[in-house]
Amino acid sequence: MKLNIAVLPGDGIGPEVTAQAVKVLKAIAMEFNHVFTFKTAIVGASAIEKTGVPLPEETISTCDKADAILFGAIGNPKYDDPSVDVRPEQGLLGLRKTFDLHTNIRPVIAYEDLLNKSSLKVKQIKGTNILIYRELTSGIYFGDKHYSDTEASDVCKYTRKEIERIAHQAFKAAQGRKKKLTLVDKANVLASSRLWRKVVKEIATEYPDVTLECRYIDNVAMALIINPRQFDVILTENMFGDILSEEASVIVGSIGLLASASIGDNHVMFEPIHGAYTKATNKGIANPIASILSAAMLLDHFGLYDEASLVREGVDKALKLHITTPDLNTKYDNISTTKVGDFIEDFIHNPDETNLN
Amino acid sequence: MKLNIAVLPGDGIGPEVTAQAVKVLKAIAMEFNHVFTFKTAIVGASAIEKTGVPLPEETISTCDKADAILFGAIGNPKYDDPSVDVRPEQGLLGLRKTFDLHTNIRPVIAYEDLLNKSSLKVKQIKGTNILIYRELTSGIYFGDKHYSDTEASDVCKYTRKEIERIAHQAFKAAQGRKKKLTLVDKANVLASSRLWRKVVKEIATEYPDVTLECRYIDNVAMALIINPRQFDVILTENMFGDILSEEASVIVGSIGLLASASIGDNHVMFEPIHGAYTKATNKGIANPIASILSAAMLLDHFGLYDEASLVREGVDKALKLHITTPDLNTKYDNISTTKVGDFIEDFIHNPDETNLN
Ligand SMILES: CC(C)[C@H](C(=O)O)[C@@H](O)C(=O)O
Ligand SMILES: CC(C)[C@H](C(=O)O)[C@@H](O)C(=O)O
Repeated sequence: MKLNIAVLPGDGIGPEVTAQAVKVLKAIAMEFNHVFTFKTAIVGASAIEKTGVPLPEETISTCDKADAILFGAIGNPKYDDPSVDVRPEQGLLGLRKTFDLHTNIRPVIAYEDLLNKSSLKVKQIKGTNILIYRELTSGIYFGDKHYSDTEASDVCKYTRKEIERIAHQAFKAAQGRKKKLTLVDKANVLASSRLWRKVVKEIATEYPDVTLECRYIDNVAMALIINPRQFDVILTENMFGDILSEEASVIVGSIGLLASASIGDNHVMFEPIHGAYTKATNKGIANPIASILSAAMLLDHFGLYDEASLVREGVDKALKLHITTPDLNTKYDNISTTKVGDFIEDFIHNPDETNLN
Repeated sequence: MKLNIAVLPGDGIGPEVTAQAVKVLKAIAMEFNHVFTFKTAIVGASAIEKTGVPLPEETISTCDKADAILFGAIGNPKYDDPSVDVRPEQGLLGLRKTFDLHTNIRPVIAYEDLLNKSSLKVKQIKGTNILIYRELTSGIYFGDKHYSDTEASDVCKYTRKEIERIAHQAFKAAQGRKKKLTLVDKANVLASSRLWRKVVKEIATEYPDVTLECRYIDNVAMALIINPRQFDVILTENMFGDILSEEASVIVGSIGLLASASIGDNHVMFEPIHGAYTKATNKGIANPIASILSAAMLLDHFGLYDEASLVREGVDKALKLHITTPDLNTKYDNISTTKVGDFIEDFIHNPDETNLN
């Protein structure tokens, strides 16, 4: 298969972790005789520094021409000042909006080998496997905004169509899993949530084999920790999905493990859910696994299931052998970002031989 | 002291738990020679059933005349249908708005005797003591709403003044504690959050002894579980406060333990943060401690510190002796809501003698 991949490393630890994902994809291409070409483009704070804007036209055009976008991370505390008008995050939000990447998928899996790394008790999390479907191009992120020194506002708006398209995806995913869908909203307070509930309940009749439950965000923020195994597919709007998916990282043991796919009708993007962690930049301590698992989701998206499985096996093996960065490692204290990438690359070339090296 | 207390038991388990709090307040009045008078009023689903509206005029007038409102819980799954226009929650939101109860305070304390009841590892939570300041009368809860079959929206609006008044309260609280204030927002995306950040940073200069940190909601939803001890006072807007405070209940071990105070300039209300749990109604299994601790916050509010302390000692003793409802009890399986209330009542009358009875 031929794939043109736009690589947007972004800021902070973005470039380091993305480099490992690219390394892994190259190894896959070599072993499976695919032709993956990579074209790098700038975004976020690094783009602001070079061009004044967080999402330059050239980056948009590179992404537009690509079959898939591999995204690193954006952000820099420099732009935290609330009076700053141009911010790195606009680069990421701009990508999502420009390419209408409406359906964001975030798997939350409790790895056997990491159970004791979580803040939660092992018996609580063992076996957890959740797929979060987060709406990514609407809601309060993209509604009208007003800002003055005396008042400010954001509008959370959803149309029926925006809800329908992601809901169908989520129901289909549930059909291939434990057949349970949890809609998370705040329908006891928000009008937009009431529309979500109405539309999702209607759509549910088309998927009679899937059990739908509708719950409030505050309740789920608690239940996700107390009993995560009760969830199969979670469907929710943009902001609630942002909060829940980052919260869910505590189940997995490190936010450095959570991958995501952002699917539009004509474009797709893959990115770790973690941020730019400016402080960790170039120290070799950034966990590349979320980025590598995002690459695996990319492979899955193009039907390259064996390839994706091999990447995931490599990740599993790295976790089992403690070839992990310090956020997860209690055994070795000097395994770097690059070393993790190298290990998984080696594994792809020699799945049967790779061992502690 | 003379206090007129409006009692609004509400729906579901509200009446059962509120009855225990009233019992405890009566015991306090007797022991300390106060005159507490109680006037009951209806709200929520029970009010809808009787009057067609969730917050009848008579209830408003009872609350208006009272020195304090003691609230139970509202809600009923009957009203979950998104097309229903009159909902129990409007009773609670109506109270908050009518009496301008803008500052909601929710303590999150890891009790020594309950550390192993939490889903989190003991070493993670031991010593946690957080005070959440949640803005309660503005934001997306109260902004303009539109709802149709094809689109729906909610506006999240904040004015400088709304931010200022709660921020000053939160900074003052931090001064009396560990002098750390965490503002939780989503300033990388929301205009309203940028105003929060701007105003709170300005106000911070008036409290130079307090360290201010500004963090994103998604990050804090994770950090609250990984390392809750890092937080002292958390200040946040309405929706984020709703989510974080319910999530924080996992630290404490049961949502049945979390109390709250809602403070306005002329009125005050005290309520457990849990909901109506319709399914548990009248089974004697509802935990009354959140309601009893809300009564303790009421006593504190009127400067009755010894009285409040005695109530809290009673709660501590109940926890130590396993006089708790099934949500917390692994030792005895038949301690009812009433029994917990009776125990704490007895303790107030005979603090030195009360023991397992
Ligand atoms: C960086 C930020 C704008 C972004 C979001 O809020 O969507 C991030 O938290 C994420 O989850 O992808
Ligand atoms: C019942 C509901 C409207 C309410 C809220 O969202 O504020 C509750 O969750 C709370 O936290 O007091």
